[in-house]
Amino acid sequence: MYRFVVAPSGMKESLSAAEAAEAIAEGLLRAVPDAVVDLLPLVDGGEGTARALAAAAGGRLVPRLATGPVGDPVDTHFALLPDAPGAPGTAVVEMAAVAGLALVPAGRRDPTATTTRGVGELLRAALDTGARRVLVGCGDSGTSDGGAGALQALGARLLDARGRELPPGGGALRRLARIDATGLDPRLTGTEITVAVNPHNVLCGPRGVARVFGPQKGATPAQTEDLSAALDHWADVLERDLGPLDVDLRTGAGTGASGGLGAGLAALGARLLPRFRVFLDHLDLDATLAGADLVVTAEGALDAQTPFGKIPGEVARRARAHGVPVLALAGTIGEGARELHLTGVDAYSGILPAPVGLPEALARGGEFLADAAERALRMVLIGSRLAARA
Amino acid sequence: MYRFVVAPSGMKESLSAAEAAEAIAEGLLRAVPDAVVDLLPLVDGGEGTARALAAAAGGRLVPRLATGPVGDPVDTHFALLPDAPGAPGTAVVEMAAVAGLALVPAGRRDPTATTTRGVGELLRAALDTGARRVLVGCGDSGTSDGGAGALQALGARLLDARGRELPPGGGALRRLARIDATGLDPRLTGTEITVAVNPHNVLCGPRGVARVFGPQKGATPAQTEDLSAALDHWADVLERDLGPLDVDLRTGAGTGASGGLGAGLAALGARLLPRFRVFLDHLDLDATLAGADLVVTAEGALDAQTPFGKIPGEVARRARAHGVPVLALAGTIGEGARELHLTGVDAYSGILPAPVGLPEALARGGEFLADAAERALRMVLIGSRLAARA
Repeated sequence: MYRFVVAPSGMKESLSAAEAAEAIAEGLLRAVPDAVVDLLPLVDGGEGTARALAAAAGGRLVPRLATGPVGDPVDTHFALLPDAPGAPGTAVVEMAAVAGLALVPAGRRDPTATTTRGVGELLRAALDTGARRVLVGCGDSGTSDGGAGALQALGARLLDARGRELPPGGGALRRLARIDATGLDPRLTGTEITVAVNPHNVLCGPRGVARVFGPQKGATPAQTEDLSAALDHWADVLERDLGPLDVDLRTGAGTGASGGLGAGLAALGARLLPRFRVFLDHLDLDATLAGADLVVTAEGALDAQTPFGKIPGEVARRARAHGVPVLALAGTIGEGARELHLTGVDAYSGILPAPVGLPEALARGGEFLADAAERALRMVLIGSRLAARA
Repeated sequence: MYRFVVAPSGMKESLSAAEAAEAIAEGLLRAVPDAVVDLLPLVDGGEGTARALAAAAGGRLVPRLATGPVGDPVDTHFALLPDAPGAPGTAVVEMAAVAGLALVPAGRRDPTATTTRGVGELLRAALDTGARRVLVGCGDSGTSDGGAGALQALGARLLDARGRELPPGGGALRRLARIDATGLDPRLTGTEITVAVNPHNVLCGPRGVARVFGPQKGATPAQTEDLSAALDHWADVLERDLGPLDVDLRTGAGTGASGGLGAGLAALGARLLPRFRVFLDHLDLDATLAGADLVVTAEGALDAQTPFGKIPGEVARRARAHGVPVLALAGTIGEGARELHLTGVDAYSGILPAPVGLPEALARGGEFLADAAERALRMVLIGSRLAARA
């Protein structure tokens, strides 16, 4: 009897990782009804992370109203996961759920002004529950304030030369004269904050977060350079007023995560850890892969970027180590997808059954994904027959 | 070493069968460079048949100017295939190449008026080459004249009650009083004409060709009924003036092929044979399938109709008899495609890599098909690994 592992990412604007996993499993079971299918919807810290982890770990979502990236309040949530029985548990704060790009209206995409204040508010709310371990998921952010807003919400005062509190946004950080940390929430001491980051993202320099991500968050070229200079200055002042720190805030791995939120939280003593180490370990991916016959992963698009920090690339890397074949499904097979074969993806397929526009592809994602999984597995089964004939 | 048979249909408005076969082979060889790939582009009598048979059999195309379905001359051709050395060969007349629906301008889709005269002209031209075996391919027709135009071009006179020749088109046949066959080309005697038909198409009755195909050729409901009555009358007069015949022109298998061209030619002594028997036997499909590891077929669309007289359905039926697994690729996976698994298609896949509109899907058909064949074979290869692990 076959044992299949279904370990997809979510498919942006179409399916959550859990929905994608359900769809794939449905299709696989149509082709091989007696297969054992392990569902392992995967997240990387971005949109849907808190919800997915709560579902996977038997936790719960705690709804909150908090400050959104453009200052308006947003309905958001964090997750509380059970630790040992009776323990207060681990809180999961997903930055995208309170400061994500999807929460920035298209007409207000000014990354010099958007704020992570809501992230700090959620952290405080998490501490209110008694949780003393907090996991912060980065990714899909709509901010570039270096985490300044989060620090303000946690009680730090960011003051200009005349002692006035700075307004929200990364742009204002150029005027930062000093940080008054006396009001910082005292519960932060004794709380273990882990920030799950893409380690390739750094705060400063030519590959710094302002220059790499500013334009796609809506910054003009001039704003990008202003922001870059402001974040350089932010790193200086953080180190001077909150240091000494273990991490180099300018170039440390992940300091640029979510518009520099990584650096801001690191200055408070948070650990920055590679997101796949955090989440895939948390979800026991390796243990689940061991002994599986096939792993099916999926993402909205597969392309030349997939091997570099995308979920199917990481799944393939780990599956190869276990000798498990990997099949990847995607709504879009983009340029350079063939490179995936080098990383351990043995085969991949698009999921679309006919010429359709993007809106229909997104709306019917679950149906298309289930059907594609069925079709793919039937192709795999042909191979089993071939081997039997040989 | 694997031996793959590539046996696709053409993909309408995108790729000929030969082009489809080339594309599939290219993709398969990317995945398994040392495979032996037998290309067997398949045709069923419709568009591209003459060209494909000439290419497959080492024959040649003979260009001609002939009367098109709306009366304007069209550049067309027939094929001459070599028989025994020194023999005059077999001519292939493809009705779609001279009276096909694609040759009827959208604004002139009146199936009561379109004519198969060009088919008769091509038959005469074929006889002029010395060929005494003629294969007529049906399918994709734009006419519903019962082959009346073809008979006129071959020398029959279709006369009304006042002895005047009828104008072109099936509608005029209601006024047919008698057929004067004295002028028929004398070479028809001693010529073996085989008409390759879909045997499900019959000339008359509730499932007659006027009622089933008239509307899609542009007939209004009233025209459909007029045409149906005219073809009933046509069968009566053909049997009276050219009979006795071996075939029941009203309900014989294939008499309705190409708007009744089957019936008209049968009245001249042509044999109507199921198209797959004619073409797939001609192309040695069964011999090629024997001992193959996998056959890959393709068509523009796979749906509930595919098992009933479409090329992938027939390929699957025959491959199953040889125990050869079947993989089918298509631009569109339509409703009911899953029924294909009952006929011997083990797996199928769409070929589109991303949300695209129909024009792009058609224009990039070769690239998409090659890539899809590669992706499909890589999935098959996963199955070989699975079997090896088991």
